Amino acid sequence: MHVVVNAATSADGKLSSRRREQVVISGEDDFARVDRLRADSDAVMVGVGTVLADDPHLVLDDEAYRTDRRENNRPENPARVVADSRARTPLDARILDDEARTYLLVSEAAPRDRLDDLRAHGATIVVAGEDRVDLPAAFDTLEAESVDRLMVEGGGELIFSLFEATLVDELSVYVGSKIIGGRDAPTLADGEGFVETFPELALESVERVDDGVLLRYSVS
Amino acid sequence: MHVVVNAATSADGKLSSRRREQVVISGEDDFARVDRLRADSDAVMVGVGTVLADDPHLVLDDEAYRTDRRENNRPENPARVVADSRARTPLDARILDDEARTYLLVSEAAPRDRLDDLRAHGATIVVAGEDRVDLPAAFDTLEAESVDRLMVEGGGELIFSLFEATLVDELSVYVGSKIIGGRDAPTLADGEGFVETFPELALESVERVDDGVLLRYSVS
Ligand SMILES: NC(=O)c1ccc[n+]([C@@H]2O[C@H](COP(=O)([O-])OP(=O)(O)OC[C@H]3O[C@@H](n4cnc5c(N)ncnc54)[C@H](OP(=O)(O)O)[C@@H]3O)[C@@H](O)[C@H]2O)c1
Ligand SMILES: NC(=O)c1ccc[n+]([C@@H]2O[C@H](COP(=O)([O-])OP(=O)(O)OC[C@H]3O[C@@H](n4cnc5c(N)ncnc54)[C@H](OP(=O)(O)O)[C@@H]3O)[C@@H](O)[C@H]2O)c1
Repeated sequence: MHVVVNAATSADGKLSSRRREQVVISGEDDFARVDRLRADSDAVMVGVGTVLADDPHLVLDDEAYRTDRRENNRPENPARVVADSRARTPLDARILDDEARTYLLVSEAAPRDRLDDLRAHGATIVVAGEDRVDLPAAFDTLEAESVDRLMVEGGGELIFSLFEATLVDELSVYVGSKIIGGRDAPTLADGEGFVETFPELALESVERVDDGVLLRYSVS
Repeated sequence: MHVVVNAATSADGKLSSRRREQVVISGEDDFARVDRLRADSDAVMVGVGTVLADDPHLVLDDEAYRTDRRENNRPENPARVVADSRARTPLDARILDDEARTYLLVSEAAPRDRLDDLRAHGATIVVAGEDRVDLPAAFDTLEAESVDRLMVEGGGELIFSLFEATLVDELSVYVGSKIIGGRDAPTLADGEGFVETFPELALESVERVDDGVLLRYSVS
């Protein structure tokens, strides 16, 4: 499976403010680029932290992409994937509507009746890992479900775990021209952090987009 | 006074790892650029967190810059400035050697005998603020001492406070091609963080340097 991580940060590396409220970081051109990236993917993934903070919908914005996908016998929207060890995704989350298939990756610690409720709301449950989602195992299951190209949209806890498990192939960061600040604000890669060896990237392209810059990396 | 903030971050916005150990983020070309920026400054500033973590020397590396400054009747090295409310700078800090003048900005909360010791080790003490260094007031004093161009090298706590006090004129960020990660690792701008309005930057230039990219902003 090919994994592309895409996120927008402030010039100081933040995904949002310490209140975890969404901050407008990019502009229209970047928005269109992200929509295109989604359209090229079989599935779009976030962590449950992002679902709880932003209630994202994760469907395509541009009708032309849907038409195109339909004509190519693909689902109108890419599937949606949430890493959610304890099945905390709210039953009324937008990500559970019927506009796309939704996989919830959970661990064995997720309450069974909660999983039944989520299934009744249309989710496809994938159990992997004891306490926390075992990402490599869960990705094997997604691959068996024909997810060959996965786009990850955040947040920082999930992105760190993906780098830790060496599952990332590409990273795109849109760096916006503002300062968010805050030692407790979420950053592009949170988690425990690396301390001795650090994942090395190769900078593939640098492009001005809107009033910021898009940095594209491949992962060595 | 013209204030230029310059720092190197990982692609995820970190200044160093959660252990606060220095991580090599940039390369030789960026190092030379930073030396040049120092040579063009009247003083170079850090927070005491950086003094305690890295024990930086903050003098010019390239002998040619010293010669040049001497020939222009300027001090061989720019002055060094530390924001250090409680005068925690160790008496054996490299920043206190006699290669350049060193200003310690302290608050009224700094113990008097400690200040005497630091003075005996060559520091020039500037008292501003009750509990914490009052940066605008301290900068007025520096300006009266002919510091017209100040370069700030970090860390993230100091940089946040400077943006909060609207004291920053320019920001240069070298974004290195690695991931450091860590929700507790220092970032380019820490502190409390902004929540409603965010300082807006104007991206002046984008340039590949070493294996990363240098982003230069002016502050609106
Ligand atoms: N600017 C952008 O591009 C962008 C994009 C996305 C999000 N955001 C912002 O990012 C913030 C949310 O980020 P976040 O870091 O708090 O949350 P996140 O990464 O979206 O989700 C983290 C959660 O995922 C679950 N998870 C399950 N398995 C995991 C694993 N193996 N590794 C890591 N996490 C796993 C964990 O909760 P359980 O243990 O309960 O499973 C964890 O707390 C929000 O403020 C949002 O606005 C911004
Ligand atoms: N990559 C880079 O370019 C780079 C550059 C510099 C540093 N670093 C890294 O950054 C880390 C240190 O950063 P840091 O954020 O912990 O420390 P810092 O910003 O260097 O220093 C913060 C300290 O400065 C003092 N201070 C005094 N007045 C202040 C004010 N008005 N506002 C804010 N701080 C004030 C405070 O201590 P008191 O209250 O005791 O005064 C505060 O804890 C280290 O790991 C270092 O390696 C990296």
